[in-house]
Amino acid sequence: MREPQQDRSRATRRRLLEACVECLADLGWSATTVAVVAERAGVSRGAAQHHFPTREDLITAALEHMFDERIEQTRAELTTLQGATPTETVVARLVEHFTGTLFKAALQVWTAAAADEALRERVVPLEQKFGRVAYRMAIEALGVDDGDEVVHRLVQATLDLARGLGLADVLTDDSARRAEVVRAWAAHLDAVLRERVQV
Amino acid sequence: MREPQQDRSRATRRRLLEACVECLADLGWSATTVAVVAERAGVSRGAAQHHFPTREDLITAALEHMFDERIEQTRAELTTLQGATPTETVVARLVEHFTGTLFKAALQVWTAAAADEALRERVVPLEQKFGRVAYRMAIEALGVDDGDEVVHRLVQATLDLARGLGLADVLTDDSARRAEVVRAWAAHLDAVLRERVQV
Repeated sequence: MREPQQDRSRATRRRLLEACVECLADLGWSATTVAVVAERAGVSRGAAQHHFPTREDLITAALEHMFDERIEQTRAELTTLQGATPTETVVARLVEHFTGTLFKAALQVWTAAAADEALRERVVPLEQKFGRVAYRMAIEALGVDDGDEVVHRLVQATLDLARGLGLADVLTDDSARRAEVVRAWAAHLDAVLRERVQV
Repeated sequence: MREPQQDRSRATRRRLLEACVECLADLGWSATTVAVVAERAGVSRGAAQHHFPTREDLITAALEHMFDERIEQTRAELTTLQGATPTETVVARLVEHFTGTLFKAALQVWTAAAADEALRERVVPLEQKFGRVAYRMAIEALGVDDGDEVVHRLVQATLDLARGLGLADVLTDDSARRAEVVRAWAAHLDAVLRERVQV
């Protein structure tokens, strides 16, 4: 079977993006070079450089690609449940979104960008997009009206909480404690959201 | 005036610790070497190495020193207000604790430790201490009983939220949005805490 050139190129690109996110999460910022990623992806260094001329090109494309995929996946899961998604399920899924490999990879890049002006300029628009899209997904999944200021702020707080829980999970497995915090927060958020609907 | 040797040594140590935290926050993990910190502190490299044989010794001592100082300071401020500290004030102070130079420095170290086994072993006990002490301070400042499971979890959630808000402030100034999130969450936390006291 002959694989068309374009498909092959797309598959190579995808392998590089996925390997890049894994490298960032496992090896950290400094160790994630185009050469290391190409090797993990089983792609020649030349081919990798053809797709991504610089390390920054590769890394920002990888984060964006993985973020779009994760959001699509989470959105699809939450849509399947639609009509009766309990608040706790939505909160738990949002929190999961911030505790996987993608979050750990993004943390490496955000942290490097904190001390690197040029990188920061590339990363800030990505961060803003990620924040906006995750917020919108949360509002939709909860089925609430964020024209209400209290709802708007508490959904934002839920995403900030999720980010904080993600950070608490970077060095040690925090899943048992996290499950309890998520349960308590979700019960509280649910009560507030119901009350606001009645206002 | 002759400064006794011991005082001079203590002052040198302190300058190194403070300069180290500033370097981490400004320049990031890789650039924060003993030589760079010594220069910023106006201390000879030999003297720096006398106090801190390795970079890891310097960095972990710096985080611990600054954390202890910040906690003492926050505790003192909150004690002054005691008797009538509004929940919003306590929450705002906790959040401030996670948005300054110390948090930015710690983030560099936590993130480096995520991809460095030996560093992680040194950093995990520090992270656990910081979490425990901040939680205890929050319980005291709020004047609540954490024998109540709901109170316990919502105070933990408040610290996780604070950590997430800290992370959202690393690349851009998030203070305006943060103030609104803090206000909304504090109002709800306050309502829950009052309700629990009445139970």
